[in-house]
Amino acid sequence: MPAVSQKGRSMPQSPIRKLVPYAEKAKKEGVRVIHLNIGQPDIKTPKVALDAVRNHTLEVLEYSRSEGSEEYREKLAGYYADNDIHVKAEDIIITTGGSEALAFTMGSIMDADEEIIIPEPFYANYNGFATAAGVNVVPVTSHIDDNFALPPIEQFEKLITPKTRAVLICNPGNPTGYLYTKEEIKKLAAIVKKHDLFLVADEVYREFAYDGRQHYSILQEEGLDDNAIMVDSVSKRYSMCGARIGCMVTRNKQIIKTALKFAQARLSPPTFAQMASEAALDTPQRYFDDVKEEYTERRNLLVEELQKIDGVKIGNPQGAFYCIAELPIDDADHFAKWLLEEYRLDGETVMVAPAAGFYSSSGYGHSQVRIAYVLDKESLKRAVYILKEALNSYTHNG
Amino acid sequence: MPAVSQKGRSMPQSPIRKLVPYAEKAKKEGVRVIHLNIGQPDIKTPKVALDAVRNHTLEVLEYSRSEGSEEYREKLAGYYADNDIHVKAEDIIITTGGSEALAFTMGSIMDADEEIIIPEPFYANYNGFATAAGVNVVPVTSHIDDNFALPPIEQFEKLITPKTRAVLICNPGNPTGYLYTKEEIKKLAAIVKKHDLFLVADEVYREFAYDGRQHYSILQEEGLDDNAIMVDSVSKRYSMCGARIGCMVTRNKQIIKTALKFAQARLSPPTFAQMASEAALDTPQRYFDDVKEEYTERRNLLVEELQKIDGVKIGNPQGAFYCIAELPIDDADHFAKWLLEEYRLDGETVMVAPAAGFYSSSGYGHSQVRIAYVLDKESLKRAVYILKEALNSYTHNG
Repeated sequence: MPAVSQKGRSMPQSPIRKLVPYAEKAKKEGVRVIHLNIGQPDIKTPKVALDAVRNHTLEVLEYSRSEGSEEYREKLAGYYADNDIHVKAEDIIITTGGSEALAFTMGSIMDADEEIIIPEPFYANYNGFATAAGVNVVPVTSHIDDNFALPPIEQFEKLITPKTRAVLICNPGNPTGYLYTKEEIKKLAAIVKKHDLFLVADEVYREFAYDGRQHYSILQEEGLDDNAIMVDSVSKRYSMCGARIGCMVTRNKQIIKTALKFAQARLSPPTFAQMASEAALDTPQRYFDDVKEEYTERRNLLVEELQKIDGVKIGNPQGAFYCIAELPIDDADHFAKWLLEEYRLDGETVMVAPAAGFYSSSGYGHSQVRIAYVLDKESLKRAVYILKEALNSYTHNG
Repeated sequence: MPAVSQKGRSMPQSPIRKLVPYAEKAKKEGVRVIHLNIGQPDIKTPKVALDAVRNHTLEVLEYSRSEGSEEYREKLAGYYADNDIHVKAEDIIITTGGSEALAFTMGSIMDADEEIIIPEPFYANYNGFATAAGVNVVPVTSHIDDNFALPPIEQFEKLITPKTRAVLICNPGNPTGYLYTKEEIKKLAAIVKKHDLFLVADEVYREFAYDGRQHYSILQEEGLDDNAIMVDSVSKRYSMCGARIGCMVTRNKQIIKTALKFAQARLSPPTFAQMASEAALDTPQRYFDDVKEEYTERRNLLVEELQKIDGVKIGNPQGAFYCIAELPIDDADHFAKWLLEEYRLDGETVMVAPAAGFYSSSGYGHSQVRIAYVLDKESLKRAVYILKEALNSYTHNG
């Protein structure tokens, strides 16, 4: 039998996937599994976006342009301008999700065996894109005691080699919920300029900044036009993860020209989804205000309830809808599996994402889990209560 | 300024893209450009598919499963069974277009610098996927005088090295229109088994087989379960290129498991498009009968009209909706550009795809163009007439 590739064997699996069969088994046995593990928001998609597709009048579902439709890109440039990010339609390539924007970015700036520095813990699929592109992730560790702030810039300096091509951040962060300050972005800008690197920022959670904090985009930083590549997506912003529409944005014309070749090879992004995404730009501000208020309340509730549990430590999540919690356990993988396989409280249990998979360095995150607050407050409160009781039972019997 | 990657610089551009600016300029000047160059069918998308999206009742546009929705995959297995291809839902991964199916396939079976043998002329984007994956295309030339039939199998034998991982065919072929016979598929099956290689077949034009010919899938060939990977798409079958839904199908469980990791990294294929694609499976047979009749008439008309032109040689296209025509010229790139920039017949001109870009070997195809018959018969007839007059003018003034 011909063998699968080494690359294929090396492709990492997300830390959650391994648990899915256990969750499915529990559900089959009638257990209610409350999901603290997923990034699929329960928030409704804006009606204007869903209606645009419902009211389509297409007779032939044609390819769009490889770089995305002109109308959508023009209108999207307007959205960025409203967010004080001044770019032109020609600086934007519409992609099939933020995922493809990352893949195009890595392909455009990195060759085999080159390196990209990423503060960890980070979104686990970055590993997958790196493996698929044949490039290496070099982690720089951020810590829960610092609330997962940017590690000291000297640590980046130490990791830069002739193979380093870029620094990648997620802002606000999945899985940390950390929102980088303007000062931190300026530090990153200085170091990438000094070493002639790209700064790639995954800003898909831009809208989700709480407590009056302002998101500062790498595209707002002056003098960074050649270095800055921003990755974006409609998935979380409009709760339309299933659209699969994202984009890459950069003022570096060579990068746009190069990424466009990758875009042309795959012909075009999905047409219906672009229709929905273009219409979503008309979502009234009220929608975002409500969503932000809802997430803030959930975040507050989650933090408050988690702090009541003995031995649990959490950062102060300021954005996105995740937080990392350090639990009084040694092996979160085992604990998460145990929750699904054995623990029941009145027929219920919870599913959490073990955090070790969000670290690239070994030895980190084994006491930590990522919690997503994408479910209603009542379920969230109940879930944390179950987690508390479960920890009590686990630590006393483990 | 940080530089783009070597890979990015190496990404090929399709032979048509370079001509697009000239076509746009001509249109701006009021010239009617008749497109013989494109693969976007003018055929209407089945109503049942468009209606499914029009009638959606989603409130949250969620991710689907990474391998595609269960319902769609089950129903798709039924479609294959109707085509005498017996596979299970678990043998199918739904992808974002046939493009992604090819990317997942290359990633799953090939490592950097390994080789894939492809009969040329071939779909130019295969080069793009190979470059993106860091692997090498090894061409084996088929010839217009043989109607682009499978080259002698000894020629494949000669090209197989320790780095060879797969043979890739497109059946029926873009750009050749050639439909491989059962005997040819059996020859390919024997050679891939002998050398422990994969046989990858792009069968997106399966339905478009004319003159009563039957398409023979690599998945119909017995004893090839470990070796055969089929790539498919809804784009041409239902004239829904903008959906961006395809799939990879194989009974090799290791390949499915590996490709699924690539699928999981990019989360899911587009939801609306899957909805349309699932509904499209209910398209009445009448639709295909009509479409096939229409394409057969266009093909006949095209062949007949082309044969009237002095010095033009064509194969006998039996499938898909393309043919390669050899013209009495030396440089089809120059001719195609000249048509757009200079030639006008009563305010009209034609756009053709120079064929050299469909060959990987240098020196081939410079007298050839690819013609797609995806426009109505009247336009098609007019286009060939313009081509004839243009050739007359070009060869007498060139």
